[in-house]
Amino acid sequence: MLQLESLFARNPVSPALKCAVMAIGGAEDKVRGRQILTAFVQRSGGSDAVIGVIPSASREPDAMGRLYHDIFMEIGAKDVEILLVADRSDAESAEILAKMARCSGLFMSGGDQLRLSALLDETPLLEQLRTQVWQGQSVLAGTSAGAAVMGHVMIASGGSNEPPNRSLVDMATGLGIIPDVIVDQHFHNRNRLARLISAISAHPDKLGIGIDEDTCALFEPDGTVRVMGKGAVTIVDPRDVNYTNFSQVEVTSPLSIYNLRVHILSHADCYNLNTHQVQHQSSSLPSL
Amino acid sequence: MLQLESLFARNPVSPALKCAVMAIGGAEDKVRGRQILTAFVQRSGGSDAVIGVIPSASREPDAMGRLYHDIFMEIGAKDVEILLVADRSDAESAEILAKMARCSGLFMSGGDQLRLSALLDETPLLEQLRTQVWQGQSVLAGTSAGAAVMGHVMIASGGSNEPPNRSLVDMATGLGIIPDVIVDQHFHNRNRLARLISAISAHPDKLGIGIDEDTCALFEPDGTVRVMGKGAVTIVDPRDVNYTNFSQVEVTSPLSIYNLRVHILSHADCYNLNTHQVQHQSSSLPSL
Repeated sequence: MLQLESLFARNPVSPALKCAVMAIGGAEDKVRGRQILTAFVQRSGGSDAVIGVIPSASREPDAMGRLYHDIFMEIGAKDVEILLVADRSDAESAEILAKMARCSGLFMSGGDQLRLSALLDETPLLEQLRTQVWQGQSVLAGTSAGAAVMGHVMIASGGSNEPPNRSLVDMATGLGIIPDVIVDQHFHNRNRLARLISAISAHPDKLGIGIDEDTCALFEPDGTVRVMGKGAVTIVDPRDVNYTNFSQVEVTSPLSIYNLRVHILSHADCYNLNTHQVQHQSSSLPSL
Repeated sequence: MLQLESLFARNPVSPALKCAVMAIGGAEDKVRGRQILTAFVQRSGGSDAVIGVIPSASREPDAMGRLYHDIFMEIGAKDVEILLVADRSDAESAEILAKMARCSGLFMSGGDQLRLSALLDETPLLEQLRTQVWQGQSVLAGTSAGAAVMGHVMIASGGSNEPPNRSLVDMATGLGIIPDVIVDQHFHNRNRLARLISAISAHPDKLGIGIDEDTCALFEPDGTVRVMGKGAVTIVDPRDVNYTNFSQVEVTSPLSIYNLRVHILSHADCYNLNTHQVQHQSSSLPSL
């Protein structure tokens, strides 16, 4: 783990990714255009892609694994492995680790992000997964719960219909793949901006990234985050925040937070994690 | 009207108010502490206050008028007039205008902001109301629909559960009391941040002010906006926005907006409309 931790320290927001990471906001199109899932297979090698599906967030991992198996085969992957981690001992299985090692793309399904992190946290499988992604062997995608786990801390659950406050969100430990982001998903669809702001108030060293359904934040190795899909990706950047009452008020009291910077990004917009600049690059992605 | 319009031009965000304007996010405490309503009576002169209630936004203006009549009398106002404007001809009535002229505080109830603006827009009553507030004769308060109408443009209706987009909000003409703000209410309670961002995208020369229930944005004559109450006041400031696709995309497509500045303010926070600075002044208001 020493090597991994040194990567955190060197470049906290964007570790030295050598493969793309695709954080999908859930409910991605699985039937018609399949734009995001197709882009994932293409980035993983297209007709040479070997995809590993990790359905552990789901309560029905077998069915979830088969669902994505069939989709990725129909899209044209060369092969699809279902990496069934039903308990933590599976995450040490030499057989499963060997299956994962041959994958050029890894896909984490939706479900419950606490279940996913409880099964994978501090296991050999997670260490190998991070190494494969960081070292350039495998593209990683995660949808819904599979996207929520990307950060070092993650939103485990939360509410809406309230102003930002400490009780509006429950935080937990994520998988630390892109350590210094907090990813939220089903974002505007479930009115989660106030809960992401609450999470960022608790972790002002992180960058908040809220991803709508059927929408993807594509983290490129160069630090660019590209937006692809039907909805928005919302960046909540607390770098300029100069006051919050976070540590002074009761957990249910509304928070004060001055000077949040918020970017609403849609298809083909890009955010650079290193320069914090935003730009529109319509030529960089296929049109919807 | 010439004089009023010159006030708009001279200081667009904050006209030269000489009395406070209290924009209340709806559902203010009417039973127990009555903190906001009490502050309104106090600002209007306390035991010398003559309050005029304008219940025109309500479909049951008689009952609404009586409700607030009784509350303001119980709080200790000297007298309460119910200014019943049931159709536009009432807004020209010399009798009603004379009643209004003796009021040191004017209160617009909740209901439907379109009904309120349809009854009052471009009437002698509205002209006199603005003059009384701007010239220092009357404190003005409005709750819910009565707060929504404060700007020159207002949010007539809208949705949630979607990323910011042009179809998420319907705009209409407000009463132009504080011309260059767009006020939204029941704000976090009804998840309205995305609709306020949508409104501000259409009107980037305005300042968005989202007010939670039982919460007040108190506009002082010096340009300070003080926050009072149980929830938050959210400022959506588009001054730094350097890109939006607003004019290029279909009405239902998600918007791109780069570099919004958002302040979440709670009780005793202040925002200065002239300097755009935020600060906490716990000594400026009674504690909750």
